Amino acid sequence: MNYPSKVLERAVEEMSNLPGIGKRTALRLVLHMLNRPDTQTENLADALQHLVRDIQYCEKCHTISDALVCQICSNPLRDDSIVCVVEDVRDVMAIENTGQYKGVFHVLGGRISPMDGIGPGQLHIQSLVKRIESENIKEVIFALSSTMEGDTTSFYLYKVLKNFDIQFSTIARGIGVGDELEYADEATLVRSLQNRIPYVESSSK
Amino acid sequence: MNYPSKVLERAVEEMSNLPGIGKRTALRLVLHMLNRPDTQTENLADALQHLVRDIQYCEKCHTISDALVCQICSNPLRDDSIVCVVEDVRDVMAIENTGQYKGVFHVLGGRISPMDGIGPGQLHIQSLVKRIESENIKEVIFALSSTMEGDTTSFYLYKVLKNFDIQFSTIARGIGVGDELEYADEATLVRSLQNRIPYVESSSK
Repeated sequence: MNYPSKVLERAVEEMSNLPGIGKRTALRLVLHMLNRPDTQTENLADALQHLVRDIQYCEKCHTISDALVCQICSNPLRDDSIVCVVEDVRDVMAIENTGQYKGVFHVLGGRISPMDGIGPGQLHIQSLVKRIESENIKEVIFALSSTMEGDTTSFYLYKVLKNFDIQFSTIARGIGVGDELEYADEATLVRSLQNRIPYVESSSK
Repeated sequence: MNYPSKVLERAVEEMSNLPGIGKRTALRLVLHMLNRPDTQTENLADALQHLVRDIQYCEKCHTISDALVCQICSNPLRDDSIVCVVEDVRDVMAIENTGQYKGVFHVLGGRISPMDGIGPGQLHIQSLVKRIESENIKEVIFALSSTMEGDTTSFYLYKVLKNFDIQFSTIARGIGVGDELEYADEATLVRSLQNRIPYVESSSK
């Protein structure tokens, strides 16, 4: 594309470096920015600058935080003997939104994926080992995505951690609440049968 | 959503103010920014700041420009007796990319759309009238989108300009090059029949 202005071209190029945003979408977004009050785009630019300058990661669980230790790790009401291992901060947010989990987290920062060149060394695994050595942790919950990479990561973690005297668990795989059986994929259906649980009245609610 | 960090939340909120980007997409984009080198996001923020501070519009045709008069208007090789009226800079770029148009442009900045609260007063129509009064313009080409709003805008412009001694034309509507007839919509097919042109050997190339 030939741009009528270098300023425009640079903004479009930088926007189109984001994943899922092509040149056309970037141009549409940039032209939208020019049609709205300038302060809104200045706010966006300022927010992005603060993002990279001021973002911090909790030194205990590695989640994104505004302080050295995050709100969850520093909350005395949370049960720090249960650690839920997740891939990234989105998983922390998803679990926190349920309001049902009272333990703490450990954010790996991804999953083992040789295809993407991500090995165990790039993930926050050593710091998890140190937490287990130094803190009074009783249970580790693997809450990784149900993919080849997620399962590989869970298995790797289990091998690294199995000699510690702690319980290991993984989140349940099965038919989602509200889902029709006939549309479930085979692997999920098999897992939901293998991992069936005793029926109690409240579980059907 | 509950965000673990105000810095993160602000960046997500500002990104999700862009059209077509919801909270989830914004979060994905912002987390991507945190996983890439900081300089890339600083470059993006800088490009957006320059965009709103330094962008200029050509004082003749209102297209986006790096100078007071754009490259097209200031090019002595362009035929400034032919003015192609378009909605926005994307249309200028699309026509320029063909490399076949030798006239100049006039960017309206949108189209008349009462539903969106855009009337003729918000478009660069008065400056088009002034151009026709003061310059030696022989033909005005309406190259607006083939929608109710585009057609309304063309009709409004024609009513405003019809007393000037100039030719008016509109870009051809018809079956796109390479398109199958059977998939064309009825309105397009009718127009392509009504506006049929004499067959010459080169037109089938």
